Amino acid sequence: MKLYYSPGACSLGIHVVLEEIGKPFETARTPLKEGAQNTPEFQAINPKGKVPALQRDDGSVLTEWPAIAFWLAASNPASKLWPEGIEAQARAYEAMDYICGTIHPQGFTRLFNQARFAPSEADHPKVIEQGRAIAEKGFAVLDKRWTGDEWVLASGYSVADAALFFVCYWAVKRMNMTLLPRIAAHFERMLARPAVQRALATEGLPA
Amino acid sequence: MKLYYSPGACSLGIHVVLEEIGKPFETARTPLKEGAQNTPEFQAINPKGKVPALQRDDGSVLTEWPAIAFWLAASNPASKLWPEGIEAQARAYEAMDYICGTIHPQGFTRLFNQARFAPSEADHPKVIEQGRAIAEKGFAVLDKRWTGDEWVLASGYSVADAALFFVCYWAVKRMNMTLLPRIAAHFERMLARPAVQRALATEGLPA
Repeated sequence: MKLYYSPGACSLGIHVVLEEIGKPFETARTPLKEGAQNTPEFQAINPKGKVPALQRDDGSVLTEWPAIAFWLAASNPASKLWPEGIEAQARAYEAMDYICGTIHPQGFTRLFNQARFAPSEADHPKVIEQGRAIAEKGFAVLDKRWTGDEWVLASGYSVADAALFFVCYWAVKRMNMTLLPRIAAHFERMLARPAVQRALATEGLPA
Repeated sequence: MKLYYSPGACSLGIHVVLEEIGKPFETARTPLKEGAQNTPEFQAINPKGKVPALQRDDGSVLTEWPAIAFWLAASNPASKLWPEGIEAQARAYEAMDYICGTIHPQGFTRLFNQARFAPSEADHPKVIEQGRAIAEKGFAVLDKRWTGDEWVLASGYSVADAALFFVCYWAVKRMNMTLLPRIAAHFERMLARPAVQRALATEGLPA
């Protein structure tokens, strides 16, 4: 199994899931800043040009954060990273989809890459303002609808926590944002996990 | 069960899923063009201000297209809209996440609402060009990685087909785009389904 990742990108969350499962895996560094996603080699792996991409032992490649997280968790039931029951599973998807489909690409991507949204540089402050508002609203909605205790889901630690972790890492370490208390406590709990510390170390990121 | 939808929005795909299942449901028209998503009443249902939102019989609300589709399909197994087995389920998510997280919000949203991306009107043609390129690449990737026969998944008709349907509907009916042959044939197959025809009729949309 091989994870294609870019240091500190959303692939960090899948890296955490792999470390939690604890089975051997390889990593393939694919730095987006250097355009590694556009090489013919990577395009053959994932024509979407995105990380994470997971190459399984049979050579097949799975893409999309929630799909990879589901597959890893469900095919490794001993990890208990995939909740039991349709209701908890629906809530796990709901959290992952909101984080991976809105908070990340609508919010943080505006904070990281304004030119992708507005060609005119004069508009970039407005794009940053929008991105920050979307990210902050995203955290507020997650906080308001929080059903778990220590973890996102009432059923316990799951792949949804690894999704929340990567956007919190961006908020705190890259954007100097202040998290809401419950989400800040979640982030501290995540940073204390050995699996998270191993993933950060492998990617060369500060803990 | 009540579906909050806006006519012709991505909620159309969930509307199709509900019609396929065939159990009674209510619809609540929530026209985005008129700002219905911003009313206090709807914000109490879904503080994200997005459709689709599904209120279940116990009053609880589920949001996010793939999460709603999963919950409806998995909790109605007789519909056979949710594939069996972890691998097929992962591929169902992969398709839904790509359509709902990239082709729609990165591609078509640029075609529908340029001001959300670039404040300067002079940049809007560039935003349209980007949106069209992202949508076209999206269809090309789905075509290249197509593993099914008549339907998206090799396992048969599923919620992934309802996801592909709503972006194809936009492409053909709103943007006058030409679909790749395999995807155009899928769209025709979808339009021939009674469930699709019922959903379109309820939303007041041309078949």
